[in-house]
Amino acid sequence: MDRPVGIGLIGLGNVASGVVRLLGDAPAAVRRRRLDVALQRVAVRDLQRPRTVAVDPGLLTDQAMAVVDDPRVDLVIELTGAPEAVEWVRAALARGKDVVTANKAMLAEHGDELFGLALDRGVDLMFEASVAGGIPIIRSLRAGLVANRVESLYGILNGTTNYILTQMTRGAGDYPAMLRLAQEKGFAEPDPTMDVSGRDAAQKLCILSRIAFHSRVTGSQIFCEGIEQVDAGDIQYARELGYAVKLLAVAKLAGDRVQARVHPAMVPADSLLANTNDEFNAIEVVGSSVGNQVFYGRGAGQMPTASAVVADLVELVQRKRAGGGTAIGDMILGEGALELADIAECELRYYLRLRVLDCPGVLEKIAHVLAVERISIASVLQKQRDLQGGSVPLIIVTHEARERQMKRALAALNDLREVEGAPRVMRIEDL
Amino acid sequence: MDRPVGIGLIGLGNVASGVVRLLGDAPAAVRRRRLDVALQRVAVRDLQRPRTVAVDPGLLTDQAMAVVDDPRVDLVIELTGAPEAVEWVRAALARGKDVVTANKAMLAEHGDELFGLALDRGVDLMFEASVAGGIPIIRSLRAGLVANRVESLYGILNGTTNYILTQMTRGAGDYPAMLRLAQEKGFAEPDPTMDVSGRDAAQKLCILSRIAFHSRVTGSQIFCEGIEQVDAGDIQYARELGYAVKLLAVAKLAGDRVQARVHPAMVPADSLLANTNDEFNAIEVVGSSVGNQVFYGRGAGQMPTASAVVADLVELVQRKRAGGGTAIGDMILGEGALELADIAECELRYYLRLRVLDCPGVLEKIAHVLAVERISIASVLQKQRDLQGGSVPLIIVTHEARERQMKRALAALNDLREVEGAPRVMRIEDL
Repeated sequence: MDRPVGIGLIGLGNVASGVVRLLGDAPAAVRRRRLDVALQRVAVRDLQRPRTVAVDPGLLTDQAMAVVDDPRVDLVIELTGAPEAVEWVRAALARGKDVVTANKAMLAEHGDELFGLALDRGVDLMFEASVAGGIPIIRSLRAGLVANRVESLYGILNGTTNYILTQMTRGAGDYPAMLRLAQEKGFAEPDPTMDVSGRDAAQKLCILSRIAFHSRVTGSQIFCEGIEQVDAGDIQYARELGYAVKLLAVAKLAGDRVQARVHPAMVPADSLLANTNDEFNAIEVVGSSVGNQVFYGRGAGQMPTASAVVADLVELVQRKRAGGGTAIGDMILGEGALELADIAECELRYYLRLRVLDCPGVLEKIAHVLAVERISIASVLQKQRDLQGGSVPLIIVTHEARERQMKRALAALNDLREVEGAPRVMRIEDL
Repeated sequence: MDRPVGIGLIGLGNVASGVVRLLGDAPAAVRRRRLDVALQRVAVRDLQRPRTVAVDPGLLTDQAMAVVDDPRVDLVIELTGAPEAVEWVRAALARGKDVVTANKAMLAEHGDELFGLALDRGVDLMFEASVAGGIPIIRSLRAGLVANRVESLYGILNGTTNYILTQMTRGAGDYPAMLRLAQEKGFAEPDPTMDVSGRDAAQKLCILSRIAFHSRVTGSQIFCEGIEQVDAGDIQYARELGYAVKLLAVAKLAGDRVQARVHPAMVPADSLLANTNDEFNAIEVVGSSVGNQVFYGRGAGQMPTASAVVADLVELVQRKRAGGGTAIGDMILGEGALELADIAECELRYYLRLRVLDCPGVLEKIAHVLAVERISIASVLQKQRDLQGGSVPLIIVTHEARERQMKRALAALNDLREVEGAPRVMRIEDL
């Protein structure tokens, strides 16, 4: 290919504007690779809206399909996050055009179809920007760690929830107040549901699991608990026990299945994940050859995400110049695809916080309930009577127990006359 | 290329045995990429020596050049670390064979020549394993962060020294004792000079600087101070001040030059680098688009290093199958290559520990010496008189000062009658 590679851009929002800026003012590393590209068409929702970057108005269209269909466009960058994006990407791949996207929801739900289509047409579908912003975790898993069987993967994949939990850990306030603060600072959307429910992290985990474990799982199948119920008191007790509370996305091998789950978890206070604060992301990967690795950085934001898009673009253009070929084969799930494990079968350590009557025999009764479910106690922390009267907080940390048994034990504890209110529980990951 | 890619291996030590093991028992991710390779020739120093991996004895030779010259060998993996390696690699590239190496000393000293030769012959020279073992830092800098101007880079690149400093920080003993412990545990060589002097880290920094800053610097030009003089007392004071002591490899833009230096430094106690302990490595990269990123993992060892070698091998073989081409262009330093800054011009914060006479006017005299060199004091910590008699420890932390001026101030402090013994000094990096 001797002429410049023709780029079509769908979307000209925050990240896309960053991409345009990087293409116009490319760092030396990009220039050294002689990235000969030309922006040929840009689809926007509203042609009249003022732009933060200079784009030739003649390139603009309000029809995404006009970008896909433009014969000068060899490569489509999709950065809308719109639900219709799957149709545009499907059409682009079908027409033999490479695609770069940051659309995690699309890949989490339609990955099988889209990667298959790309392979079929001999083009590429690249998506570094879809997970953890500027952190090169996708290419690290696909290329850098290719000589590893990934055993487990722990991610702080959502900046909004990590910001909120960090503020709560620093004692700045409780969940509702810190959510409002995050919204004021622009770290949380006006409707924060996707973030605080863990669904955003689950979509990203779904993409990472496909690469790391070759597992077929869609975002909506992943067990998901958000941070809405995390209590500042639990964060305080976690600290006393040597842990920090994070919204963790976990995927790990469990026999011939893969566990994939998103939930608040206690992680050791001296771990790198515990020290991943504010809006930062981190992913810990345990590989059969390399052991533990951690990748840390900004998981969102205009320029970090644009950096990932341009990295994909550079790789694609280099590959086209070198004679083509596609690197999509590893994204295709064949017969070896691993199925999802039932969350009820997961074995984990648990933190329990009960409010119990301060009278003889209570601990014995509670210990009995756990023993019936064969849940072994690792440590107990009984607090002195506080101002709330006749009951005291009782903290129990268990050894590994099956989620199913813990569920039953919780129901039984809830029924005890000596236990006031519902027991609070949090999973522990020792990393 | 329809036949299997022919691999020639020079060296069959620890890492090379790991590579052979990975090729024989490849993880699914490698198999999915249909890595059709065949080990054709293996050079060893001693044909009679027992092997830890099964290799067809018919493949063995004690002549490295027999591997290079073998017509069935398309790709040479050099894993000896021998000084003669540069001749074998030069010959392999000249014959149009791709090379994968872990030889940091060779690349640090002969990078210009070897990368140029590879470009000239249209082949590749890959070296992920030469820096930080299994951490994919080379491909992250070359590909994942390609859309960034790297502003600075801070590395814990030597596992031996990090192990020793970690043990000293935990109060396990002083430097000589912890060096002996590291030797007993196999983390330090019988002759530990390359590691403890910082020279090993400097060679790795030289490779990273070439990628990150496009700077022409050989390992031996990098300013280098080892950990031999680090005192357990300084580590203790660092902790009181909120820092941890690490052997840091630093490269950063300074105007139109690049600072590159290796020395013990104090880093903030809550940073990820401060929490990089034992034999682990970590690299913090500050990029113009992504901001701060950290890559953490095992920087040495058989399987982590073999993992990096096989990752390079997989990428090379995929590229050959896709029609060839080379990705070496970015390693060639053209006219834009940055020169090294003089260490004397570096501006840094400093920690000073003096032992001073406990009498009036001492602090004034010391402050005067610093003021003469226009070094501004950030904080002072004066300890109570201890058992050693009439003198007391005085800790001073400065604001940013030029190394040249600090040198002069140290000489003047040393001349003060009120200062006992030589002042101790350590650089501070706030990351």
